[in-house]
Amino acid sequence: MAQAEPLPFDMSLEGYNLDLATELDHRALTLRHPKLQAIFKVQSVIIDSFREFMKKNDFFEFQAPSITPATAEGGAEVFQVNYFDKKAYLTQSPQLYKQIVMTAFERVFSVNKVFRAEPSATTRHITEIVSLDAEMGFIDSWLDVRDMSENTVRYILNEVAEKCSPELKLLNTTLPTIIDKTPTYSLTEAQELIFQKSGRDVRGEKDLNPEDERTLCDIIKKETDSDFVYVYGYPTRQKPFYVFPNPENPEFNEGVDLLCRGVEWLSGGRRINDYVQLCEHVEKWNMDPNAIAMFLEAFKYGVPPEGGFAFGAERMTMQILDLKNIREATMFPRDMNRIDMLLSGAEKEV
Amino acid sequence: MAQAEPLPFDMSLEGYNLDLATELDHRALTLRHPKLQAIFKVQSVIIDSFREFMKKNDFFEFQAPSITPATAEGGAEVFQVNYFDKKAYLTQSPQLYKQIVMTAFERVFSVNKVFRAEPSATTRHITEIVSLDAEMGFIDSWLDVRDMSENTVRYILNEVAEKCSPELKLLNTTLPTIIDKTPTYSLTEAQELIFQKSGRDVRGEKDLNPEDERTLCDIIKKETDSDFVYVYGYPTRQKPFYVFPNPENPEFNEGVDLLCRGVEWLSGGRRINDYVQLCEHVEKWNMDPNAIAMFLEAFKYGVPPEGGFAFGAERMTMQILDLKNIREATMFPRDMNRIDMLLSGAEKEV
Repeated sequence: MAQAEPLPFDMSLEGYNLDLATELDHRALTLRHPKLQAIFKVQSVIIDSFREFMKKNDFFEFQAPSITPATAEGGAEVFQVNYFDKKAYLTQSPQLYKQIVMTAFERVFSVNKVFRAEPSATTRHITEIVSLDAEMGFIDSWLDVRDMSENTVRYILNEVAEKCSPELKLLNTTLPTIIDKTPTYSLTEAQELIFQKSGRDVRGEKDLNPEDERTLCDIIKKETDSDFVYVYGYPTRQKPFYVFPNPENPEFNEGVDLLCRGVEWLSGGRRINDYVQLCEHVEKWNMDPNAIAMFLEAFKYGVPPEGGFAFGAERMTMQILDLKNIREATMFPRDMNRIDMLLSGAEKEV
Repeated sequence: MAQAEPLPFDMSLEGYNLDLATELDHRALTLRHPKLQAIFKVQSVIIDSFREFMKKNDFFEFQAPSITPATAEGGAEVFQVNYFDKKAYLTQSPQLYKQIVMTAFERVFSVNKVFRAEPSATTRHITEIVSLDAEMGFIDSWLDVRDMSENTVRYILNEVAEKCSPELKLLNTTLPTIIDKTPTYSLTEAQELIFQKSGRDVRGEKDLNPEDERTLCDIIKKETDSDFVYVYGYPTRQKPFYVFPNPENPEFNEGVDLLCRGVEWLSGGRRINDYVQLCEHVEKWNMDPNAIAMFLEAFKYGVPPEGGFAFGAERMTMQILDLKNIREATMFPRDMNRIDMLLSGAEKEV
C-alpha cells in the first residue's frame, strides 16, 4: 500500500452524513462507503440480469451507436458534436437502430448510452443515461411485448432479491411486489378508475400526470397488492411516429407504460411494421424521410409484426432502492451543472 | 408479414458481392446476410465472454462515462460537445475512471464507448469504438496484469471456438494459436531478436513500428507456434503519465502490449499507485492537476499496487476473423466521412 493521509471526512457506516453535492465532489472517496457500494452492486445486478434474461430468450446483443447524423425527430434536447468540420449529434434513443437490427436478427437487445440535453436541474434529470433496450419480431399483438417486459422485470427483481440481500438490508429497502398477472388498463379505463375511486375527473386528458400516476398506483396496490400497473393506448398523435395505432380505434395507439409506486419504470409497445403505413406516418409527423432513409429501407422489403421496450438503468436503480435523487443511482452523474465537478459558473444543483 | 418488394441485390450466400461502401449504404438490408450475421455473432460472443471471465474472477462491472470535462491529456483527437452554454468532450478512454473505481472495488471492468477524432480514413480507423476495460488492485507486479489479460484472451478464444463453430466455418477462418505460456520480451530484447533473426537493426528505437511487429510475430510463430507475443518495457516518457516506471531502470516503464499475427491486440500494464510519484509525473508531463483533481484524490488516501488492460471489440473481431477493414467488424461504423450514410461533401472512404 502506498503512503496515505487519513480520509478527510467520517466514512464510518453510521457516521457518514455528507450532502449529495459534497458526496459527488468527492466521488473518488465516497465510492468506498459500503452504502454507496451497495447501490452500484444492485445496479450491476439489474444490468446483468437484464442481459441474462434477454439471452435466455434468444435475444441477440448488439452495440447501438452513440454518434448520430442529423436527427430525424429533431428537438432542442439533443447534444451537438463538432464532427471534424461537420455537425453530428449524441443519440437520444437507439429506437430506430434496434428496429433495424431486429429486422435482421428477429430478437435483439442493447445496453448503451443515451443522452438528453434537457436544461432541467431536478432530482430526476441526468444528461447521460444507460438505456436497456429490447425489440422483438413475430409478435401476435402488443400483449406479447407487455408479457416479455413483465417477465424481464420479474426476473430482474428476483435476481436482485437473490444476489443482493445484504445490500438491500444495508439500504433498508423492500422490493416492490410483482404479482402473477400485472393489472393492465387502457388510458381511458385508468382515467375512469381514477374518477370512480378518487372523484378527480381526468377523463379525456391526453396522458396521465404525476398525480394521476400516484393515484392509480395507490388504487391498484389496495385492490390487488400489486405495486405495478400497465397503462396502454395513448393518443396516437401524442407519441412518436413509429408507434402502432390500434386498428379498431386508430386515434389511440398500442404503446404501453409500466408504472410502479407512482412513477414510470419502462416504456414500450407495438411498432408499425408496414412500409406504406410507416411512410404515411412520417409524412403526418412532418418528418424528413431522407433523414431516416436507412431505417425506412429496413421496412421496405418486409418485416413481421414487432415491438419492444426500454428502461433506464439509473432510474430503475433509484426506484428499486427508493432513492430520492437519480444522482445517487449514477456513479458519475452528468447534469447541466456538473461533469464530475461543478462546471464553472454553474448554478447550485438540486 | 407486411407487404414487401424483392430485395434490390443478390443476397444469396454465394452471389453476394457488394463493395464495402454499398454494403454500408444498405446496412439495414445487408445485415440479413448470413456472413455478416456471423461476424456480429462472433463479436457478441467476444464481448459477452469478456464480461463472463471478468465476473468469474470477481471483477465488478461499472458504467464508464462518455461525456468528460476539459481533457487532462488534451490532444486534438477529441470530439467537442456543445454542452448547454459550455464545452464538454467525448471520452477517449475510461482509464482514469477505471482507476478511480478500482480504488473502491479492487477489481473492476467496463464495456463502454470511446471516441477518437482522428482525421484518418484508413482501414483501421473508426471514430466510435466499444472498449473492453479491466483494472485490478493488489498485484505483485505487472506480470499479474499480463497473466490476467492472457487468460482473458484465452477464455475469449475458447468461447468463440465453442459457440461460433458454424460461423467460423462460414467465414472460413482459423483462430490464432495461444500456447500455455505466451512468449514475453522487453522492447529491448524484442529489438535485439529482430536484429539477430532478420538483420534489420531497430535497436534503440522508441517503439516497434508495424514492420517490426510483423517480423517479431513471424519469428515467434516459427520458434514456438504461438501466434501471440507480449512486449513490455517502453520508454517511460513516450507513454501516458500514469504508467509505472521500472524501479530498477526508470527510463523504461512496466507497460505491456499483446501482439498477434503482426498487430497489437491489447494494451495494459502496471500503473503508478503512489500519490507523490503520481504528482511528480503530472508535473513532468506538463499536465494541469486541477483537470484531474478527482482522479488524484483517489490516490491521496492510499491505493495498493495496481494495473489493468484494455482492447477494442471491433479490432479484436477484425483480427480474430482476419477481416480486411474494421468497418466490416462494426455494425454501424462512424468515420470522418460516414455516419450511417456518407456525410455530405465527404471524400470517398477507404
